[in-house]
Amino acid sequence: MFRLQKDMSYLMPVHFGGDRFDTSYQARQKATMLAVTFETERAALERYIPEELELLAPEVKVALDQLTEINWLGGGKYNLVTVSVPARFNGKRDHVDAAYPLVVWENRTAPILTGREQTGVPKIFADIEDLHVFRPYYATSLSYEGNTFLSMQFEAGGPITGTDLERMKLQIKSLDFIGWRYIPKVGAPGADLSQFIHFPQWMAVERAYRGKGTLQWTELSVMQNPRQHHIIKALANLPVKKVFLSILAEGEVVLDTTKARVLE
Amino acid sequence: MFRLQKDMSYLMPVHFGGDRFDTSYQARQKATMLAVTFETERAALERYIPEELELLAPEVKVALDQLTEINWLGGGKYNLVTVSVPARFNGKRDHVDAAYPLVVWENRTAPILTGREQTGVPKIFADIEDLHVFRPYYATSLSYEGNTFLSMQFEAGGPITGTDLERMKLQIKSLDFIGWRYIPKVGAPGADLSQFIHFPQWMAVERAYRGKGTLQWTELSVMQNPRQHHIIKALANLPVKKVFLSILAEGEVVLDTTKARVLE
Amino acid sequence: MFRLQKDMSYLMPVHFGGDRFDTSYQARQKATMLAVTFETERAALERYIPEELELLAPEVKVALDQLTEINWLGGGKYNLVTVSVPARFNGKRDHVDAAYPLVVWENRTAPILTGREQTGVPKIFADIEDLHVFRPYYATSLSYEGNTFLSMQFEAGGPITGTDLERMKLQIKSLDFIGWRYIPKVGAPGADLSQFIHFPQWMAVERAYRGKGTLQWTELSVMQNPRQHHIIKALANLPVKKVFLSILAEGEVVLDTTKARVLE
Amino acid sequence: MFRLQKDMSYLMPVHFGGDRFDTSYQARQKATMLAVTFETERAALERYIPEELELLAPEVKVALDQLTEINWLGGGKYNLVTVSVPARFNGKRDHVDAAYPLVVWENRTAPILTGREQTGVPKIFADIEDLHVFRPYYATSLSYEGNTFLSMQFEAGGPITGTDLERMKLQIKSLDFIGWRYIPKVGAPGADLSQFIHFPQWMAVERAYRGKGTLQWTELSVMQNPRQHHIIKALANLPVKKVFLSILAEGEVVLDTTKARVLE
Repeated sequence: MFRLQKDMSYLMPVHFGGDRFDTSYQARQKATMLAVTFETERAALERYIPEELELLAPEVKVALDQLTEINWLGGGKYNLVTVSVPARFNGKRDHVDAAYPLVVWENRTAPILTGREQTGVPKIFADIEDLHVFRPYYATSLSYEGNTFLSMQFEAGGPITGTDLERMKLQIKSLDFIGWRYIPKVGAPGADLSQFIHFPQWMAVERAYRGKGTLQWTELSVMQNPRQHHIIKALANLPVKKVFLSILAEGEVVLDTTKARVLE
Repeated sequence: MFRLQKDMSYLMPVHFGGDRFDTSYQARQKATMLAVTFETERAALERYIPEELELLAPEVKVALDQLTEINWLGGGKYNLVTVSVPARFNGKRDHVDAAYPLVVWENRTAPILTGREQTGVPKIFADIEDLHVFRPYYATSLSYEGNTFLSMQFEAGGPITGTDLERMKLQIKSLDFIGWRYIPKVGAPGADLSQFIHFPQWMAVERAYRGKGTLQWTELSVMQNPRQHHIIKALANLPVKKVFLSILAEGEVVLDTTKARVLE
Repeated sequence: MFRLQKDMSYLMPVHFGGDRFDTSYQARQKATMLAVTFETERAALERYIPEELELLAPEVKVALDQLTEINWLGGGKYNLVTVSVPARFNGKRDHVDAAYPLVVWENRTAPILTGREQTGVPKIFADIEDLHVFRPYYATSLSYEGNTFLSMQFEAGGPITGTDLERMKLQIKSLDFIGWRYIPKVGAPGADLSQFIHFPQWMAVERAYRGKGTLQWTELSVMQNPRQHHIIKALANLPVKKVFLSILAEGEVVLDTTKARVLE
Repeated sequence: MFRLQKDMSYLMPVHFGGDRFDTSYQARQKATMLAVTFETERAALERYIPEELELLAPEVKVALDQLTEINWLGGGKYNLVTVSVPARFNGKRDHVDAAYPLVVWENRTAPILTGREQTGVPKIFADIEDLHVFRPYYATSLSYEGNTFLSMQFEAGGPITGTDLERMKLQIKSLDFIGWRYIPKVGAPGADLSQFIHFPQWMAVERAYRGKGTLQWTELSVMQNPRQHHIIKALANLPVKKVFLSILAEGEVVLDTTKARVLE
């Protein structure tokens, strides 16, 4: 019969075996990141912020990451788009500032599963085009079963250099997340597990470009996207008060999964 | 701020709202099922059976389901392949016979997430071709990022009719699962949640055909399928002592999600 | 060395061999067809009609065909959307009425190649969703690299029966095309081959439903669809004066490829 | 009505307009190329060489090109695998040495159409994975509707530098093709067009690595790949007498389409 081993970490299906829990493990990958950040109305945004968190600024960052040479995926690749806000967890014990992801779309299932089950990152699936690059223009689209719901465009200005680049390297270095891991009860409303989790990650930036980014949301009907239409609607309806300077950066992204911890 | 509602059921991301927990809800879909069952060696198979379960027979069923007109996916579709064994849960309170899925491959992420998080069904992703139908031949292939790991073929004989069909309808009617829902600890080995779950589901068969089915496994390298190669290897190496008559059936499949319950 | 055989039919690559030219061959497949037809302004439409043809009515038919169990593709499947007008070829010898396809989008390359090279059907690639069916609602979307450019929706009314069905069967029976096969010169403007071709095809309708169909075009930028944006723009800008009753039909479609002939 | 313009170049569908024939146009793109070359038996290989050509050496090159930032595709991308041999066209007028492609698999339809119809390159469709890169290991797979038929692997050795790199730059510089453009007759065996075409193309290599490459062919059944199974079988059965050193190169690839010319 199959028996669980004490020092192992498992994901479903469990009975084919797990991985030894190893704190030296880090998920590493090459990344091209395109981040578009805008200011919105605080009240509109706070509707989606749980009471355990404090919204540090009414700002929404929409960031595409195109990941390649991923160590834990045998050198494979995937794309993701993170919609996050700056937040503070104020618990009995922990007081932590980090990005709170409202939603993360990814075009590969394996990291969706690990992200949700290990660290409470609210990942869901979408088709995400690799960046089309017709310099200085960059573009990608997110779609669900043939229906586009987000177009991202970027027109690159000059490269960021010197002290500006050094400042940006420091600024981007921390990409820590606060995840809300929520596993429902079986056969009843409510949760069997509801935890806030601090998940350390960072990017070592090698090159970066300033530029003009744009976001274009298209709402979808229930039939076009039955499980996500309300998320798209919520984000598409956030007022855009100001779009900040957008950034395209290349470098290495590291996820320090085993250093994640439950916040209290 | 976002606040959880008492009678609601949520999945991540939680803060965009959930669904009212409603016991009248059932997932319904049209299904074409192709099931190939074989006898293997008990000892080889029991290596993958957790001690909470008893293996009722050393038999493995590999079943493709091609689902369409899915009510909870807006009329969309997906394919899945379930590898399961007949098992009994012998707990302090519950004594239940059902299929125990060793693994379920699906080609759509949304049902993978609900299956894992709501009912502990060990679903993972693969590309699964819609059935190619060149009567009387049927074929499908499972692949991961371009690497085929399972080919299923079927040569249909005559339709099943009369009392044979009635018997089959009764036989297939119950497709109940025992899932093992396992959610790992954060930043440590072991589990925050480890439960066996009874998940009722059934098929109303309308048409069925007997025939000759074949399975062909191809093992993949770590680089070709870094997260699943050990599962494929385990299944590919189960000795095939006898292949039973295979079945192609069409009808409606119903998943009674809210009637799922934790076994004790 | 490789030598061409006299009674063989070849497609590139030629040197691996061809198929014996066989007039008994017909491409056969199961089909679900959703046709939405609208009236437009004659002058606007005639801009896209070559002078060899006469536009019989200022009507545009947009028809999805979902094909399965395709004999020449080993039982495989694909979807296509045909945009066509009723036309007459008035040549020196031939006087033929048939549908003139302005464009055909298909989600599989093999039939695109045979259609273009053998019979001059102007097929190009798009992602085309299998019909989502949430009765009585049907929907599909056409997209190119993640960018939706056409949504088709249908709300089915009752089935067509009795003499109405018989009339429809006769009406749909002929789906003959007039193709314009055009192969460019090498290293120069103009054509090495420019021919009008009559291509016989038909559908044996088994079931049909009337209903309300809608088309929604979304224009794409050059960067989003560099090779087709002008086609989408042209079609999206045709005035819709009236939408006729839409039809959903199921049956068998036959393409009589070897009976195609060059019109003169 | 639509009328052809004299100085324009068209592809089907013609009636939406063409492009001005412009000899300054070149298709440009970034490329990562992985080339594995082997020696085979002359007689076995010559079965696939048309009599108009002379086989210069019994060598087969299988080269993956991963193309990005493609100017004529709006900055999009695609992958291709070319199987070619060194050949000489000995005509009445022309005597030309170049690579003769036996087959080219591509994972995007638009360049398949231009390649076939403009320059007689025998392109057909396959799914081709982006390179998985787990340094020093590289891998890709070609599959058709879920069935793998070719795996390519590469283990990189050191970078090629100095005079070796300069020699390689010169060596790879010319990637000229001889295409055989063949358009069948309508409703009869034989051809309406059968031409050999010289198509100039080259690569400006920036970086290159030597290494050990491997090819693994898997034959497919007629049902698994109805239109290509004979091509795969032919290539899989070429004896491998010796595998040469393999090359991974990065740089820019240029196709000089308008300089293509018919050989006589």
